[in-house]
Amino acid sequence: MTTKLKPAHLRKRTSIGSRRNPEAEAAVLAAARELISEKGYAGFSVDEVARRAGAGKTTIYRWYPTKADLFIAIYTTERSTFVPVPDTGNLVEELVQYTTSLWRFWASHPAGAALRGLIAEAQGTADALSALRDRFLPDRTADVRRMLTHAVARGELRPEEVDDKVALWVGFSWFKLLIGELHQEDTIHSVMMQIAGISSHPQP
Amino acid sequence: MTTKLKPAHLRKRTSIGSRRNPEAEAAVLAAARELISEKGYAGFSVDEVARRAGAGKTTIYRWYPTKADLFIAIYTTERSTFVPVPDTGNLVEELVQYTTSLWRFWASHPAGAALRGLIAEAQGTADALSALRDRFLPDRTADVRRMLTHAVARGELRPEEVDDKVALWVGFSWFKLLIGELHQEDTIHSVMMQIAGISSHPQP
Repeated sequence: MTTKLKPAHLRKRTSIGSRRNPEAEAAVLAAARELISEKGYAGFSVDEVARRAGAGKTTIYRWYPTKADLFIAIYTTERSTFVPVPDTGNLVEELVQYTTSLWRFWASHPAGAALRGLIAEAQGTADALSALRDRFLPDRTADVRRMLTHAVARGELRPEEVDDKVALWVGFSWFKLLIGELHQEDTIHSVMMQIAGISSHPQP
Repeated sequence: MTTKLKPAHLRKRTSIGSRRNPEAEAAVLAAARELISEKGYAGFSVDEVARRAGAGKTTIYRWYPTKADLFIAIYTTERSTFVPVPDTGNLVEELVQYTTSLWRFWASHPAGAALRGLIAEAQGTADALSALRDRFLPDRTADVRRMLTHAVARGELRPEEVDDKVALWVGFSWFKLLIGELHQEDTIHSVMMQIAGISSHPQP
């Protein structure tokens, strides 16, 4: 490219950047974040992200081939602000604190809408399904898996129970996200007790 | 309407029916079922349902104002072929049998794709969210709620645990549906034991 040899008025107006650079990427992500939080999944389009970011659609597609990739990028950027729960040695307490913080994070950040969008996209295309299951999920369940693994080390759970409990925890949290009931925090404590395996039913 | 007074070749070709009649409704549902199972959520449109059923789009919208309504209708029609699990008096056994049958039903009937579509739509519009949560969910969790309520009557669970366990069960089953893991039936038994509250961790 030798645009610098041409006088300014003869240069083509270039898009925000075809090479991946932090400023352009930040502008695209900011526009995507704003759009998902304003219009939700149904009103989200790459066209509109491009318009708001002043970026070329082709550029965005080169960086984020699918909507699912954009949703994961929004989530991941915001997720770094989420402070993990300290290791207290009490599984139920850790799960309750973590789940409460996470639900509030989902409810108050575009990340929540982005995750809803990612799950919805995954019902439409195989690429999005694989991004959700194979790329997003393992990272995003690592915290809960660690809490459960510590409980195994303390002799409170058996190692083979960990996968089931991770699935129960994700399933329950997604369910509340997907039906719009993240405000029902009063259900968290008793459900975490059940997931932890603290039996509350009458002894025979 | 006095079309019978005109000779056949002068009559306008009418759509499949603007009044709700069983044949027309069956044709629309058959087309919708075929389309969701062939193209999935991403390829589903009312335009294409109308084309395949030879029905007017306006008629379909009058009967089913949203895609969510169509998905619920597909699910409900097929659901009537699903035989409930007999009451054996063993909660884990009942939950395992029921969940296994349901996952196979989802995997092998358009109802599964319709439910994925309904959940995805609910991430986009408030109407679909309300249809999913307030109209679809209560009916579709009645069987599991009944199994749990019978266990309460047998003194195996406390009444206040039922809602939590229903949420855990729905969450887990939706999770496996939404990430495309309905074939992993080997996870059902141990998870149902955890939901039933049969503790398998070492006694202190």
